[in-house]
Amino acid sequence: MANLHPNGVFCAALTPMLPDLTPDHEAFVQHCKTLLAEGCDGVAMLGTTGEANSFSGTERRALLDSAIAGGIDPARLLPGTGVAALTETVELTRHALSVGVTTVVMLPPFYYKGISDEGLFASYAAIVERIADPRLRIVLYHIPQFSAVPITISVIERLRAAFPGVFVGLKDSSGDLAHMESLVQHFPGFSVLAGADPLMLPLLRKGGAGCITATSNLVAADLSYVFHNYANPALAAEVDEAQARIVAARNRVSVFAQIASLKTLLAQKTGKASWTTMRPPLLPLTAAETAAL
Amino acid sequence: MANLHPNGVFCAALTPMLPDLTPDHEAFVQHCKTLLAEGCDGVAMLGTTGEANSFSGTERRALLDSAIAGGIDPARLLPGTGVAALTETVELTRHALSVGVTTVVMLPPFYYKGISDEGLFASYAAIVERIADPRLRIVLYHIPQFSAVPITISVIERLRAAFPGVFVGLKDSSGDLAHMESLVQHFPGFSVLAGADPLMLPLLRKGGAGCITATSNLVAADLSYVFHNYANPALAAEVDEAQARIVAARNRVSVFAQIASLKTLLAQKTGKASWTTMRPPLLPLTAAETAAL
Repeated sequence: MANLHPNGVFCAALTPMLPDLTPDHEAFVQHCKTLLAEGCDGVAMLGTTGEANSFSGTERRALLDSAIAGGIDPARLLPGTGVAALTETVELTRHALSVGVTTVVMLPPFYYKGISDEGLFASYAAIVERIADPRLRIVLYHIPQFSAVPITISVIERLRAAFPGVFVGLKDSSGDLAHMESLVQHFPGFSVLAGADPLMLPLLRKGGAGCITATSNLVAADLSYVFHNYANPALAAEVDEAQARIVAARNRVSVFAQIASLKTLLAQKTGKASWTTMRPPLLPLTAAETAAL
Repeated sequence: MANLHPNGVFCAALTPMLPDLTPDHEAFVQHCKTLLAEGCDGVAMLGTTGEANSFSGTERRALLDSAIAGGIDPARLLPGTGVAALTETVELTRHALSVGVTTVVMLPPFYYKGISDEGLFASYAAIVERIADPRLRIVLYHIPQFSAVPITISVIERLRAAFPGVFVGLKDSSGDLAHMESLVQHFPGFSVLAGADPLMLPLLRKGGAGCITATSNLVAADLSYVFHNYANPALAAEVDEAQARIVAARNRVSVFAQIASLKTLLAQKTGKASWTTMRPPLLPLTAAETAAL
């Protein structure tokens, strides 16, 4: 898997917010440092879990700037830059490149539905051509339950043929392990990253590259342990134990709304209130839910 | 229906684009003038039909500025200002108010799915509170086939109670006439606008306020005729004929992709090539489709 880029454990980082719903930059940078210290290979900031789809372009750029100003190596950041508007995806991606990031996670345009493969290809192609930067590396983001625009194997094939070296991987949040395996088989050298924590281990065994996941906000050390030791028979029992903790954590945050549950637990862990703030349309857990969690 | 605001025929205006995919401002302003001259009561620019969800905030603001600079009365513009990000919806709406527009069409935040009524209410409430402008009038935009976030009767009820006078109407693009009728019955004084041209007439007969529709880019005069004369028994035959032309036009543009079909026909009508350009992920008709159309 060393030949795959990106590879490893990437945290789909939560975003703490102040009472006025602006991102708490200081707490966010601290969180990134903690995640890296716990063993994350990088931070996939400004994704679905980070509530970035509720942030303006200005807010997204400012948070990325703060992460880098705060000392996070841009090579370890995989910011989400794909939005509904083609030109804004270009702007956000150019900004990421301008501050030293080279690999971004890119949603398909997600407003219009029933998009043809031809239209989806044309959209990604126009974005790459407009950015026109040989450093650019794109991890496609397949999350049909939110985007409602699946990224098909045929589109990936065309993009990789048309832009060699640019479309390096895919975050698969479909929850469908068979789909992830078929991508690994179809595209040698393509970095398939599990979007759900419990699926990283079975995907690694099939040639996957790692994960970009939400529960890693809480169990990064366990994921890192599994990632580095799953192939070592001498550590099979320890890997199984770490995996069991990952599955338990994931189950725990899946009873109520997942992002709100993760933020509640992170607030308890850090003692920082800004972790419980959420931006509408997502809401914090109720008092009863918090108690039950 | 005179007591309803807005009421009348509003065109969900198409957006012409230059070969580099930037909006053709000059052709757009001319189109707005034509629509008003043909009898439209206003232009609902920057909506789904206008491909606005593929435009950045900067592009949206510039097109609205051009329409007003070009002489279109802002009181006759209903721009779409609802995007996925709460803060950007606030920015776009504030901009519209700053140039003299008072009534906007607002999508729900459409990235996150499975949003609760509580979360949807919180989102619209936060937007209104942040804008904090007594001039603001909002037409909600119910288009579940694209937004995948339906606007429920319970949310409308809460918004109208919490912000009297702000939530003045709803564009219903569900295609479900019974749903539109139930909104008319539930909310006296609330302006329910059909999102599909053929449904304006039956909705008017049930107390609806008019329409915001795509085919009006081609058949505005017929829609205006129906709107002004449907209740006059002496003109029943003429109204039926106009309605038949509206239905025929709508059927004609529904064989292939609707927005592309409308733009192809408008290019033929005006002789302006910029009408056939479309921004990915939407694509122009193929040569074969154009011939068949």
